[in-house]
Amino acid sequence: MPMNSLLHAARGETPVDLLVRNCQIVNVLSGEVHPGSVGVKNGVIVGFGEYEALCVVDGHGRYLCPGLIEGHIHIESTLLDPVRFAQVAAAHGTALVVCDPHELANVMGLGGIRWLLEITRDLPLDIRCMMPSCVPATHLETAGAAISAHDIADMFKEYPERILGLGELMNYPGVLFQDPQVMGKLLAASGRPVDGHAPGLSGFDLNAYILAGPGSDHEACHLEEAREKLRAGLHVMIREGSSEKNLFDLLPLINEFNSQNCSLVTDDRHCDDLLRDGHLDHTIRLAVSQGLAPLRAIQMASINTARYFGLSRRGAVAPGYRADFVLLDDLESFSISEVYLGGRSIAPESWGAASTDHAVTASVHLGDIEPCSLRIPAPPDGKTVRVIRTIPGQIVTEMDLVVPLVQDGLVMADPEADVAKLAVFERHHGSGGVGLGLVRGLGLRAGAIASTVGHDSHNLIVAGVSDSDMLLAVRALAKCGGGFVCVRDGWVLNLVPLPLAGLMSDQEPADVAAALDHLNASARELGCPENINPFMQLSFLSLPVIPRLRLTDKGLVDVEAFAQVSLYG
Amino acid sequence: MPMNSLLHAARGETPVDLLVRNCQIVNVLSGEVHPGSVGVKNGVIVGFGEYEALCVVDGHGRYLCPGLIEGHIHIESTLLDPVRFAQVAAAHGTALVVCDPHELANVMGLGGIRWLLEITRDLPLDIRCMMPSCVPATHLETAGAAISAHDIADMFKEYPERILGLGELMNYPGVLFQDPQVMGKLLAASGRPVDGHAPGLSGFDLNAYILAGPGSDHEACHLEEAREKLRAGLHVMIREGSSEKNLFDLLPLINEFNSQNCSLVTDDRHCDDLLRDGHLDHTIRLAVSQGLAPLRAIQMASINTARYFGLSRRGAVAPGYRADFVLLDDLESFSISEVYLGGRSIAPESWGAASTDHAVTASVHLGDIEPCSLRIPAPPDGKTVRVIRTIPGQIVTEMDLVVPLVQDGLVMADPEADVAKLAVFERHHGSGGVGLGLVRGLGLRAGAIASTVGHDSHNLIVAGVSDSDMLLAVRALAKCGGGFVCVRDGWVLNLVPLPLAGLMSDQEPADVAAALDHLNASARELGCPENINPFMQLSFLSLPVIPRLRLTDKGLVDVEAFAQVSLYG
Repeated sequence: MPMNSLLHAARGETPVDLLVRNCQIVNVLSGEVHPGSVGVKNGVIVGFGEYEALCVVDGHGRYLCPGLIEGHIHIESTLLDPVRFAQVAAAHGTALVVCDPHELANVMGLGGIRWLLEITRDLPLDIRCMMPSCVPATHLETAGAAISAHDIADMFKEYPERILGLGELMNYPGVLFQDPQVMGKLLAASGRPVDGHAPGLSGFDLNAYILAGPGSDHEACHLEEAREKLRAGLHVMIREGSSEKNLFDLLPLINEFNSQNCSLVTDDRHCDDLLRDGHLDHTIRLAVSQGLAPLRAIQMASINTARYFGLSRRGAVAPGYRADFVLLDDLESFSISEVYLGGRSIAPESWGAASTDHAVTASVHLGDIEPCSLRIPAPPDGKTVRVIRTIPGQIVTEMDLVVPLVQDGLVMADPEADVAKLAVFERHHGSGGVGLGLVRGLGLRAGAIASTVGHDSHNLIVAGVSDSDMLLAVRALAKCGGGFVCVRDGWVLNLVPLPLAGLMSDQEPADVAAALDHLNASARELGCPENINPFMQLSFLSLPVIPRLRLTDKGLVDVEAFAQVSLYG
Repeated sequence: MPMNSLLHAARGETPVDLLVRNCQIVNVLSGEVHPGSVGVKNGVIVGFGEYEALCVVDGHGRYLCPGLIEGHIHIESTLLDPVRFAQVAAAHGTALVVCDPHELANVMGLGGIRWLLEITRDLPLDIRCMMPSCVPATHLETAGAAISAHDIADMFKEYPERILGLGELMNYPGVLFQDPQVMGKLLAASGRPVDGHAPGLSGFDLNAYILAGPGSDHEACHLEEAREKLRAGLHVMIREGSSEKNLFDLLPLINEFNSQNCSLVTDDRHCDDLLRDGHLDHTIRLAVSQGLAPLRAIQMASINTARYFGLSRRGAVAPGYRADFVLLDDLESFSISEVYLGGRSIAPESWGAASTDHAVTASVHLGDIEPCSLRIPAPPDGKTVRVIRTIPGQIVTEMDLVVPLVQDGLVMADPEADVAKLAVFERHHGSGGVGLGLVRGLGLRAGAIASTVGHDSHNLIVAGVSDSDMLLAVRALAKCGGGFVCVRDGWVLNLVPLPLAGLMSDQEPADVAAALDHLNASARELGCPENINPFMQLSFLSLPVIPRLRLTDKGLVDVEAFAQVSLYG
């Protein structure tokens, strides 16, 4: 930093670049709103005062509030190109995003993280990463890559500023039982923030987990769970995403002595919600509507998060802080009239799109797909099969034992009983591996739906009542580099390509949102009921860490036993 | 840290060393007081819960509060051996002290800092340092040492854990005018906390000072000054010492949104106050008496300070935190019944005393002292002399122009006019340098008083009405390795040796306090009025950075001109 010119400007010896005068400063440090003017030089706030300036903006008494900081989000869940995501988030007042590229890393490993960091390097919105800690998430599936403790240490060296610490440590049994690989990752992250992820963990095991390193948690859904975690020293990230909404339940946790240890975060947010309601600005509005003081809500989405991550001179408006701020017409409604990042009003023109290379856009590598790939031999006489049953709006599943429909010695889909066939094709290494099973609850009466978004390994998952439609769906996705597809009677009804690692679109956000609307309409035509998001439900059917029954490319998984299990039960 | 055994203990698989059960936990993280039991293993808190334990202590419903953290103190000002200081502070609930050994460093340089760190290395109370940033304080005096930016960088490497950052940066003009040496020190401290010291600094200059690096300030005496500093991003350390008492004036600054950015600190505290009233526990009691919530006061003397300094897992009671806590009979009155540091109840037996070496105890190196050393030739006919006039209870001085008493062509002390002779002998390098002047306001009617505590260079300063008594006082201090002395009519009335660098006693705290009482009684006999602390007044007469007239070993200093000035005016 050219300290020389900054100090001269701060002392008023040379003009500042920008003066925003006549504002009500939302001061998250002194905990008050006070009138003032803010001088900016070289993208940095030099201080309060009536500076001589090259450019003067009259605030007209508007509120000048620090740019918001997102502490935990998976950008992949927006389905947006990260550059386009950044532009949408910036328009909603977000200045800095700490993301966990867990999905990207499961597909592309370190190359995916490097790609993300490079394409977002010079954006006005500052994107930082946490190193994904669980790649692969389990041994029960085939991921695109594996990230070791050694890799993590190397990446900290390669990106000392942009990678802040270790991402959500979902493998809490690995901590409690001191798995050497998990402990190695914690050691590599020593002295850096480690995000926790410990849904329902309590008592002695929670103590042990915290002792090992994690400093935050964003999984608490109930007040008492959040209270125990806060008491035990975790920075509580209150999550308000598209699927997981914890704000209203957890707000009663906040009091005047503890809010500095809490942040507002998003975790997962769909692009339509992002476009329609906003980002952290939306969460602030919700919190204020529930009676939280606006100043406190803003602190929880700015300075508190910056401090948890050890981000120096971010998240407030004061000398030396990056000149990230938002002009608000009104504080209670957090109505944004203008956003400045690095001292510049964010441009209305497009920030462009992510540059890609072959590794990013060619992430779908299937082995040979034959009609016989989907054949499920019938169980011995009178035996039942294990069927995954989805629950509308939840990602947990149940296990049903069902006498299957059998033809010619093969298990068939049974639309009358709402039982579809389900297959997960290994899509990273072209191994040809495929796991087969059955699913109930998607409502499919015809055709097939398929996705290359399939937590956490993001293999290709397909559900259908017709083998030929299922195969067509798989081939359609393989051809376009991944995405979502609906197929019926040999026709592709609707295809949303997600060519960036098979996870994200390369199109404009509004177009992505519209395409998803059309896609869901097609899924409804196939029978999916209105009360479920069929592609979200589908994408979680392969996640072998959430109870109770899942399907990966390696086969059916009983999550309670954390082991593979036969289809025949 | 043997994580293995800690995690086993935290999970309840092996007994903990200590369980303190049946307590009301003062939880500075969750901002509440809640019932609970605390398990400790290897000096670390493993968590809350009813652990099986090797030793169980019943809290009987007492409050269990984190050990207190001192953010800014000069241990030298207590006049106590640092080891004995630590024991006294620990008894008052202090667990960690961040000290600035500015005085010691001005006498002994890096050797003094190393000595301090070594003698306190294994104490139950954790002592950390900030690197003194202003040694020597000015070019207008001769210090015992100089500390460069290079030295500072080296010391950070030598003591990566125990030296936290750069000590109070008093030379704010050096920052504003970008003095290369000052900027070099800031660069060396890059990424570490830098304590500010900017009394009265405001507006553009305050902005520039903060921009350059300082993150805290403990010099604000007025509410509006503190408010401006807090708004501008400084961590406000509210000082309540023996001479500077800012708590009552600054408490109205605190609100429910900003207290995390404020700490309670001491700066300077005399040993009698420490023994009688306490340390930070006293400040907490004062703050609570003024209406501050006890929980907030405790946060300001624990976790807030830990976080400002980036001290991980210090200042709270939660898993992974060092097991420093205090059992209180009552929260409002902060009445301490027991103190645990590192998981052990602090022992009633003595922690011993600082080990010393020759460099520490032989810090007084005078040149040849002759009777003629004190001779002040009379000014030209009719000319006046500049006389330093002290103001009771303040460290600022005034400048009087006085027609001196002259005998045989020499300026004499004039007790009738309350004018004593004043001399500062260079005592570090044996150069024989001596500055001569006159002082009014000490009330001396006979004899002399002398001190090797003389801010900031700590040369030997002596005031008297008799040259021979002044010389005797100087020789008495030279002989005993430094201290305070009163002399009358050729007799040493009272001597308090301070053999540790000429700044600190090697005796028991209660004995030091009693000796100081006797010393002051002797000074009263010499004429010093009741409303001044004669040795404190004396020790500040050589401080050339506080207005208005001072005397150093190099001669009289006009502080407003920041230059030497003739005695004759």
